[in-house]
Amino acid sequence: MIPVSRFADVESHFQGRNVLITGGLGFIGSNLARRLVRNGAHVTLVDSLIPEYGGNLFNIHDIEDDVRVNISDVRDEYSMAYLVQGQDYLFNLAGQTSHMDSMTNPYADLEINCRAQLSILEACRKHNPGVKIVFASTRQMYGKPDYLPVDEKHLLRPVDVNGINKMAGEWYHIVYNQVYGIRACALRLTNTYGPRMRIKDARQTFLGVWIQLLAEGKPFEVWEGHQLRDFTYADDAVDAFLLAAVDDAANGEVFNLGGDCVISLQDLADLLVDVGNGGEYGVRTFPADRKRIDIGDYYADDAHIRATLGWTPRTSLREGLAQTVDYYRRHLVHYL
Amino acid sequence: MIPVSRFADVESHFQGRNVLITGGLGFIGSNLARRLVRNGAHVTLVDSLIPEYGGNLFNIHDIEDDVRVNISDVRDEYSMAYLVQGQDYLFNLAGQTSHMDSMTNPYADLEINCRAQLSILEACRKHNPGVKIVFASTRQMYGKPDYLPVDEKHLLRPVDVNGINKMAGEWYHIVYNQVYGIRACALRLTNTYGPRMRIKDARQTFLGVWIQLLAEGKPFEVWEGHQLRDFTYADDAVDAFLLAAVDDAANGEVFNLGGDCVISLQDLADLLVDVGNGGEYGVRTFPADRKRIDIGDYYADDAHIRATLGWTPRTSLREGLAQTVDYYRRHLVHYL
Repeated sequence: MIPVSRFADVESHFQGRNVLITGGLGFIGSNLARRLVRNGAHVTLVDSLIPEYGGNLFNIHDIEDDVRVNISDVRDEYSMAYLVQGQDYLFNLAGQTSHMDSMTNPYADLEINCRAQLSILEACRKHNPGVKIVFASTRQMYGKPDYLPVDEKHLLRPVDVNGINKMAGEWYHIVYNQVYGIRACALRLTNTYGPRMRIKDARQTFLGVWIQLLAEGKPFEVWEGHQLRDFTYADDAVDAFLLAAVDDAANGEVFNLGGDCVISLQDLADLLVDVGNGGEYGVRTFPADRKRIDIGDYYADDAHIRATLGWTPRTSLREGLAQTVDYYRRHLVHYL
Repeated sequence: MIPVSRFADVESHFQGRNVLITGGLGFIGSNLARRLVRNGAHVTLVDSLIPEYGGNLFNIHDIEDDVRVNISDVRDEYSMAYLVQGQDYLFNLAGQTSHMDSMTNPYADLEINCRAQLSILEACRKHNPGVKIVFASTRQMYGKPDYLPVDEKHLLRPVDVNGINKMAGEWYHIVYNQVYGIRACALRLTNTYGPRMRIKDARQTFLGVWIQLLAEGKPFEVWEGHQLRDFTYADDAVDAFLLAAVDDAANGEVFNLGGDCVISLQDLADLLVDVGNGGEYGVRTFPADRKRIDIGDYYADDAHIRATLGWTPRTSLREGLAQTVDYYRRHLVHYL
């Protein structure tokens, strides 16, 4: 466990600082914004509110007077060139995350996950080279693991266009750190869950749909069920972003994030029904279009971030799921 | 050595077949075209003739009546969608190869090395899914090696924007092979040299500038000199492209190419002066802008392509350099 005192120290860095969050109305962005506001940061949220992505104004309904919301698209390089100026920290979370969408519209995925990242970095290089950037990357780029748990030395072997483009986006950050000294690092997120996640479809994670259906009192579907996964609770992911931002030991590094346990999807379904006080699910085989890009079991070795930045998950899967189900039972209408 | 009979068999596959070569007026593309014409293929060369890149009409002056030349840019997705139709083989060699240019204009590099590759693959998926594609990739994406020789299991850790974008371009090919069954593979080229290489500057390889100056009777510069490298002669690279095209064991694979020996840059300079019957060079330290992206020693483990496709270099470095110097002494004016 991270001692509370350590975290108070980390959070104190943000008092009075200027922080830009791309994808700031999305799941992780809005949770990050809430924590930063609580710690006295001046927070600007950039989001395009594209309906298929994760942005949702309800995510900030309780902090909207404490943040500046700027509706724009990270592909708009002129807006971004302005917005990065004067920022102390940039949490770069805007992205297209749907694997299926990346195959049906690979160009949009390229523009958002590659080109926009390059233009954000170019804007920082030209207008704000002193900024510190933390990029939200993904374990998706590892593809089907050769070994478990997967550490950062595992080959990158993406199985879809999204994984390729996220890989490029991540590496632009690392190269700009190495070549230009623009401090940047990347967190390779695994399945992240919690309040404010997108649940209306499976574009962020299958778990969103499960929670939606559970909250609606309908049965959900488990595909196969034997696959092993790890899960990071939103607050724990926020901890990792803050630690990576304040600690220069992170510069130029990529870090896996994991969770507090490894669990099969069927056991996860059982746990969800248990903490949700009821609900039901059925098990079925993979749809053909998903089977082609399925990666089998995955769980991270996150020793690198634990050792380097002192991160550790503070929320058990049971507790995190309980808080998530509770959130969506109260606010479901805003997420459908 | 590959028996001549094996190669006659490989080459016989191209008799009467339709072949498209992107970057076809460039160094490797034009050498490939020459071999394919000799073996009875119907060859179309696509090239944009951008002055900073490798395309040069003189490269095909002796075969221009035997090929179809189509001046267009791979970024032009409508032209490409037409040109891929009806082709049996696509040798996909068009690319921005300059590391320095990728840093000064990262967007152009992105458009050529990422977006154009995606649109070529989309065109094949929609209009010619039966085509076989061989993509010219690069060892540049390995970055500074962790171990030598570098095999295909080495982590990809690009040190510049070009390496990142080439990595993405390569992986689009692999993913389209895996997901859509469009047969594709990639060759990770090391320093390739020979007649028809770009020698007017160092955009393809430093060796071009050395040969230019040697052919002009001027001294050339060796930076440091202790770095180890391997070199593939153009004809041997052509062998590898042809083998990868005809053998379905290549599908979905990436292969390193190496050469017949490993040599330090200073020994290479000495060998060049020796085969060139004179010439001189000086040794200096790295310019600062190159030092930042220097990768130290590099040489490939190419056991994978040797074992899978039976490739082996057939030209010694001495013989290849001699032929190259002879070519540029005769044709220098067309390459300045």
